[in-house]
Amino acid sequence: MKIKIINPNTTWSMTREIEESAKQSAREDTEIYAVSPATGPDSVESLYDEALAAPGVISEVIKGDREEGADAFIIACFGDPGLEAAKEVTDKPVIGIAQAAIAVGKLMAPNFSILYVLDRSQKIIENVLKLHHAEEDCCSIRSVGLGVLEFEDKEALLQALLKQGKRCVEDGAECILLGCAGYTAFAEEMRQELGVLVLDGVVPAVKLCESLVDMALKTPKKKLWAYPDAKEISGFYELIKY
Amino acid sequence: MKIKIINPNTTWSMTREIEESAKQSAREDTEIYAVSPATGPDSVESLYDEALAAPGVISEVIKGDREEGADAFIIACFGDPGLEAAKEVTDKPVIGIAQAAIAVGKLMAPNFSILYVLDRSQKIIENVLKLHHAEEDCCSIRSVGLGVLEFEDKEALLQALLKQGKRCVEDGAECILLGCAGYTAFAEEMRQELGVLVLDGVVPAVKLCESLVDMALKTPKKKLWAYPDAKEISGFYELIKY
Amino acid sequence: MKIKIINPNTTWSMTREIEESAKQSAREDTEIYAVSPATGPDSVESLYDEALAAPGVISEVIKGDREEGADAFIIACFGDPGLEAAKEVTDKPVIGIAQAAIAVGKLMAPNFSILYVLDRSQKIIENVLKLHHAEEDCCSIRSVGLGVLEFEDKEALLQALLKQGKRCVEDGAECILLGCAGYTAFAEEMRQELGVLVLDGVVPAVKLCESLVDMALKTPKKKLWAYPDAKEISGFYELIKY
Amino acid sequence: MKIKIINPNTTWSMTREIEESAKQSAREDTEIYAVSPATGPDSVESLYDEALAAPGVISEVIKGDREEGADAFIIACFGDPGLEAAKEVTDKPVIGIAQAAIAVGKLMAPNFSILYVLDRSQKIIENVLKLHHAEEDCCSIRSVGLGVLEFEDKEALLQALLKQGKRCVEDGAECILLGCAGYTAFAEEMRQELGVLVLDGVVPAVKLCESLVDMALKTPKKKLWAYPDAKEISGFYELIKY
Amino acid sequence: MKIKIINPNTTWSMTREIEESAKQSAREDTEIYAVSPATGPDSVESLYDEALAAPGVISEVIKGDREEGADAFIIACFGDPGLEAAKEVTDKPVIGIAQAAIAVGKLMAPNFSILYVLDRSQKIIENVLKLHHAEEDCCSIRSVGLGVLEFEDKEALLQALLKQGKRCVEDGAECILLGCAGYTAFAEEMRQELGVLVLDGVVPAVKLCESLVDMALKTPKKKLWAYPDAKEISGFYELIKY
Amino acid sequence: MKIKIINPNTTWSMTREIEESAKQSAREDTEIYAVSPATGPDSVESLYDEALAAPGVISEVIKGDREEGADAFIIACFGDPGLEAAKEVTDKPVIGIAQAAIAVGKLMAPNFSILYVLDRSQKIIENVLKLHHAEEDCCSIRSVGLGVLEFEDKEALLQALLKQGKRCVEDGAECILLGCAGYTAFAEEMRQELGVLVLDGVVPAVKLCESLVDMALKTPKKKLWAYPDAKEISGFYELIKY
Repeated sequence: MKIKIINPNTTWSMTREIEESAKQSAREDTEIYAVSPATGPDSVESLYDEALAAPGVISEVIKGDREEGADAFIIACFGDPGLEAAKEVTDKPVIGIAQAAIAVGKLMAPNFSILYVLDRSQKIIENVLKLHHAEEDCCSIRSVGLGVLEFEDKEALLQALLKQGKRCVEDGAECILLGCAGYTAFAEEMRQELGVLVLDGVVPAVKLCESLVDMALKTPKKKLWAYPDAKEISGFYELIKY
Repeated sequence: MKIKIINPNTTWSMTREIEESAKQSAREDTEIYAVSPATGPDSVESLYDEALAAPGVISEVIKGDREEGADAFIIACFGDPGLEAAKEVTDKPVIGIAQAAIAVGKLMAPNFSILYVLDRSQKIIENVLKLHHAEEDCCSIRSVGLGVLEFEDKEALLQALLKQGKRCVEDGAECILLGCAGYTAFAEEMRQELGVLVLDGVVPAVKLCESLVDMALKTPKKKLWAYPDAKEISGFYELIKY
Repeated sequence: MKIKIINPNTTWSMTREIEESAKQSAREDTEIYAVSPATGPDSVESLYDEALAAPGVISEVIKGDREEGADAFIIACFGDPGLEAAKEVTDKPVIGIAQAAIAVGKLMAPNFSILYVLDRSQKIIENVLKLHHAEEDCCSIRSVGLGVLEFEDKEALLQALLKQGKRCVEDGAECILLGCAGYTAFAEEMRQELGVLVLDGVVPAVKLCESLVDMALKTPKKKLWAYPDAKEISGFYELIKY
Repeated sequence: MKIKIINPNTTWSMTREIEESAKQSAREDTEIYAVSPATGPDSVESLYDEALAAPGVISEVIKGDREEGADAFIIACFGDPGLEAAKEVTDKPVIGIAQAAIAVGKLMAPNFSILYVLDRSQKIIENVLKLHHAEEDCCSIRSVGLGVLEFEDKEALLQALLKQGKRCVEDGAECILLGCAGYTAFAEEMRQELGVLVLDGVVPAVKLCESLVDMALKTPKKKLWAYPDAKEISGFYELIKY
Repeated sequence: MKIKIINPNTTWSMTREIEESAKQSAREDTEIYAVSPATGPDSVESLYDEALAAPGVISEVIKGDREEGADAFIIACFGDPGLEAAKEVTDKPVIGIAQAAIAVGKLMAPNFSILYVLDRSQKIIENVLKLHHAEEDCCSIRSVGLGVLEFEDKEALLQALLKQGKRCVEDGAECILLGCAGYTAFAEEMRQELGVLVLDGVVPAVKLCESLVDMALKTPKKKLWAYPDAKEISGFYELIKY
Repeated sequence: MKIKIINPNTTWSMTREIEESAKQSAREDTEIYAVSPATGPDSVESLYDEALAAPGVISEVIKGDREEGADAFIIACFGDPGLEAAKEVTDKPVIGIAQAAIAVGKLMAPNFSILYVLDRSQKIIENVLKLHHAEEDCCSIRSVGLGVLEFEDKEALLQALLKQGKRCVEDGAECILLGCAGYTAFAEEMRQELGVLVLDGVVPAVKLCESLVDMALKTPKKKLWAYPDAKEISGFYELIKY
C-alpha cells in the first residue's frame, strides 16, 4: 500500500526526518512518501500558522487521492491542521499524528500527558484534545519551550524533553505523547529514562494507516464528512504573509 | 468607531446585504464597511470551505488592523472560520457572528436552537458550539435544506425557516439562532410568527463590537492568543481549487 | 434609554460608587440610576445573604418595570442573586454583573479566573459559574480575603487584589474577572500591573444593556421564564406582588 | 428525635398532608412536625415563587434550630428552595425532598425520570438536578400539567400522573421521582401500575434524616457552608437575623 | 430486619471488625451478620483483586437472598466490587460502602475527598466515582500508602490517615471519605483532629439499608438490572448458579 | 506474532467462528488462536454474566502470557469483561473488541451508534462507553432483541440487524458498531445495505494488536495498572494465582 505523509510546514529537512522514521516503522509492503505543501508557513506553532497550513494540506490530499494513488494520508503536525476538511475531500483514511498518538495512548495506557513545543502553542493542544474528545484522558499538557526550528541541538532538546517529561510523570501520567513530529527520534530514550510509555505520533499513524487500509475502510460520506460541493474559488494567498 | 465586517465567502451580493443590515443596526457614530476576501470559496457550507476561507479572513483582519484603522472586526459566517487565528494577529476585538448570536442568546434566553443551511453543514455548527463552550445551552440544531446561493426565492426561504423554526420550538427552544448571515432579514418576521426570540448574528455582532470598543478592551497577548512569530510563508493556493 | 442598577445589598455608599462608575461608562443618551432595596443585608457574602437579598432585588425590578419606565436592569452583585426570578417578572433585559463579566470575558479572552471577596463566599462563585454554564472557561477562583465592608483602605485592597491576581496569572488566566461590584475602580490599574485583561462587572453590564436595548430584545415568555402566575403572598410581600 | 418539616408554601392544608405521610413513615421514636412559613407564596411553581419562599424557609430553620430543639430539617418542596442557605444557618442536617428522592433513587435504581407540576416549572427541576449533580442520572423530566392548587380532583391527578409516568417509562426510566410534595399519596399506586420504582420525596427525606441524626452527623463549617457573619438586615427581616 | 454484610476479601479478622462497628451503629431491631466469601483474595487492592472477589460476593448475595432471609446487603469494600451484578440477582437493596459514603457525603457536605490504601489502588477509586456519577463532588483522592494487611500498627495508621487527611483539607475538602472498610474505627478521631466531616462507609451503609428496608423498596427489574437469564455455567460456579 | 483471542463465554462454537474471521483478517505472519475459559457462563448478556466471566478471562491471559508465548490478547465480548484487570497481569497489549471497534470508529467516522443483543444488556454497553470515555462519540445504542444463543437463523438475525441499523442511521449515525462478536459475519452486507460504515470488533482488534506488537509497546506499570501484589487466594482460584 501507499501512504502519503503530509508535513504541514514547508521545512523539508523536517519532512525528510519524518519520512525516515515512518519508513523504519512501516511494513515491507508499505510504500511511504512524505511531502511539504507548496504553500504554508515554515513551522506550525500558532493557530494562525495552522490556518495558513490547512489549504496546502488539503491540496496535497486531493493530489494524492486523484493523481498519486495514495491509499491513506497522514497529517504530520500535532495539531492535525486541516484534518476534518481533508476527510471531506477523500474517502480514504486520513489520520493526524495527534489523533494517532491519542488513539494508541488510549489503547495502551490508563491516561497520558502531552509535551509540546512553545508555551504559545498550548491552545493548539487544547483544541486537538477537544477535536478527538480526549480531554478526559489527558493528565496535563506541558511545553518544552523550544521552537520547532530550534531542534538542531539534539542534546539540549532531549534534556528539555526529559525535564518536562518528569513533571508529566509527577502529574500522574503513565504515558507521554510527544506533541511534535520533530520529537520522534527521542521516544525510546525517554521511555527508558522515565519508566512510562512514550509515544510519538508518526509511528502510530503509520501503523494505524496500515491497519485501516488492510481493513479496506472508507470514510462514510452520508452527511457530516460528505464530499464538498464544487465551489468557485478565487485568487491566491500571497497577501497573507505577515 | 470603524467596524470591518468580513464575509468569508466571495459572493459580494451577500456581502452587500450583510453590510446593509449592519448599517441599519449600527449607531450614528459607527462606521461600517464590509468586504469579501480576494480569495476563498463563493459560499461556506463545508469544513473544506471553511479551511479555504480562513486565510482570506485573516488577511482582511491584518489589512484592517495595519492599514485601514479598523477598531473591531466581525467574521460574518456562522461557523466563525478563522476566528481564533484572527484574534492572534490583532489585539482589537474580533467577533464571529455565531459567537455573537450565542452570547446574546445566553444573555436573553434560557436556551436556544440553531437553524442552519444544509444537512451537510451540521458539523460546522457542532464545531462552533464546542469552540464557544455552548453545547449545554443548545436544544437542537436543524437544517433548512437550502444552500447559501439558493436564497433568491425569499418566500421559499422564509417558509423553510418557519417550518424548521417550529420544530425547534417543539424541541423546547425559547430562542432561535439563525445560522447563516443570509438569514438576517427574516429575524423579525420569524419572531412574530413563532413567539420566541429569534436572533441573527450580524446585528448582535455589531452591537457587541460597539460595546467592546467603547470599553477600549484589547485581546490579552500573554500566551494563548499571542501574536504569531513571523514566519516564512511559501507560495499561493490556486492549486487548491477542487 | 433608562437603565436601573440594583445593588442587592443595603449599603448605599457602595450603591453610589457603583452608580458613579456606571455613569462614566454609559453613553450620553443613557440614563443610569442605582438603588438598594428597602430590604436585605448590608453586604452579600454568603448564600444566606443572597437568599435574603433576592426578594428586594425582585421588588425593585417590578417597580422599575411597572412604575419607573426602566428599559433594562442590572443586578450589581457578583453572585447575580435573584437573576432568574427577576427575568420572570419582566420581559425587559435583566443582567447580572457576573453574567456580564463572564460574557465579555468569553468574547475577549481564551479563559478567565475570578477574584472574589472572602473564602467563605467561594460557593457563590461556583454557583454563578454553573448558572451561566461557564465552568469550562474558568481557570481558577481565588479569594482576596477582605470583606465587602472592609474596603475603606483602598491601598490595602489594591495590594490584596494584585497579590491574588498574580496567582491567577500563574494559574494560566489571561483575563481576571473582579468578583465584587466594589472592585470596579481597580480594573485599569490591575490590567497595567498584571499584563492581562481585567474586567469588573458593572461597566460590561451597562454596555451590554445598551446593546440589548438598542436591539429591542425581549425575554421570551414561552415557558421557562414565563411570567409567574399571580399568587397569594403572605406576610410582608405586598410590595412584591404584581 | 425531632424532625421539622418546612413546606415552603403557605397552603396549610398541603402542609398537613405532608405531615401526615411523614408521620406514617417515621419511626415511633421520631417526632415529626410540619409548618408553613409566615411569609411566602401559597404555591411554588416558578423561580420567582422560590425566591419569595426562601427567606421564610430559612427563618423556620433558624427558629427550629435555636428555639424548638429540632434535630433535622426537611424542605418539602421539590425545588429545594433555600437549601444551601439553610445549611449555612445550622449545623444540623437539612435535606430537600428533591435531594432525598434523588439520593434514594440513585441507591435503588440505575436511572430515574422526574414528574413535576406545570410546564412553566421545568426550570426549577433543571436547576435542582444541577444543584445535586444528578443530571447524568436523569432520563427525562415531564410535566403533569396541573397546578399545585388543582389537586382536589384526586382521580384526575392520578390519571395525569399515570399518563406522564408511562411516557417516562418509554423514555427508559426505571424509577420515577414525584416532583411535588402533593403527589406523595400516589407513589404506591403508580408503582403497581407502571412496574417501575416510584418515589415521592417526603418519605425518603424522613428516613434519611433519621439515619443522619442516628449517626450524629453535623454539617462541616470549614468554609463553603460556614455560618454567615452577622449582618445588618433592613426591612422586614428581623425575624431572620440571628 | 436482617442485613448481610459481605466483606469481599477472605480475611475474617477484618470481617469481624466490620461486623463489630456495623452492630454498634445498627438499631436494636436490626440483625447484622457479616461474612467473607469462600472464594477470593485475602485483600482487595487492585482491579485484578476486584475481579476475583466479585463472584464470591455475588454468591453470598444469592445465598442470603434465597436461603438466609436477608433483607438487604452491604458490600464492604470501597470499590464496591460486584455491586451492579449483585443488584441483578436480587430485588432487595444492595449497597456498596463507597456508594453509601458518597451518598451521605453528598447529603451532608458541599464536597469530599477520598483517602484510600495504596497508590496502586487509585484506579479503583476513580472507577467507583465514575460508577456513582460522583466525580463532580470529589476534590481529590489521596493514598495513605499502607496495604490492607498492614493495619496492625493502629497508631502508625492513624498518623498516616491524619497526614493525608490534612492534605485533603488543603485541597479544599470539607468532608473526607475513608476509602477502606478497615479505617472505620478512626473516623471520630480524625473528625476532631481535622475539623471536617469524616465518614467511613460501613456505618452509613447500615443506616441507609435500614432506611431502604423501612421503605420496603425493591430494585426495579424492568431492564437494566433485570434478573439474569439462567445460564449454563461451567467449572466452579455451581454455587453461583441460581 | 501470536495473538490469543479469549471468548469470555464457554460456547466453543462461537469461539471457533470468532477464530475463523480473525484468521481471515490477520496477516500471514500472525498466528491466531482462540479459546473459551474453562469457567464462566455460556453467554454474556448481563452484568452478572460479565462478573462470572472475568476470572476465566484473566486466567487465560495469565496462561497465555506465562506459558504460551502470546504477544497480545483480545477479549472477544463487546462489554470487554475483565479488561482492566487483564491489563494488570501482563504488560503485553490487551484489547477488548468494544475498545477496538470504538477506536477504529473514532479514526474513520464523525460518530457511531452501537447495535447490541438484548434490551437487558444495555447497561453493559453504557458501562463500556464510559470505560473508554466514548460517550460523546455515540449517537445511540439500540438492541437487536435476539440472545447470543439464538443466532442459528442467520437470515432472521441479518434482518433484525438491518432493521435496527436503519434506526441508527435515522439517529444520525455514520458508523455502526456491532456490539457482539457473533455479528462479525454481517458487517460487509450491512455496510452495503445501509450506506454507512459498519464495524465489528474482532477484525479491528486483530489489526490493532498487530500494530501494537509491531511497535513493541508495553503496558506501563507505574501505578494504575501495576502488577497486582501476590495474594492468598481462597477456593477455586489456584489457576489464577500467579
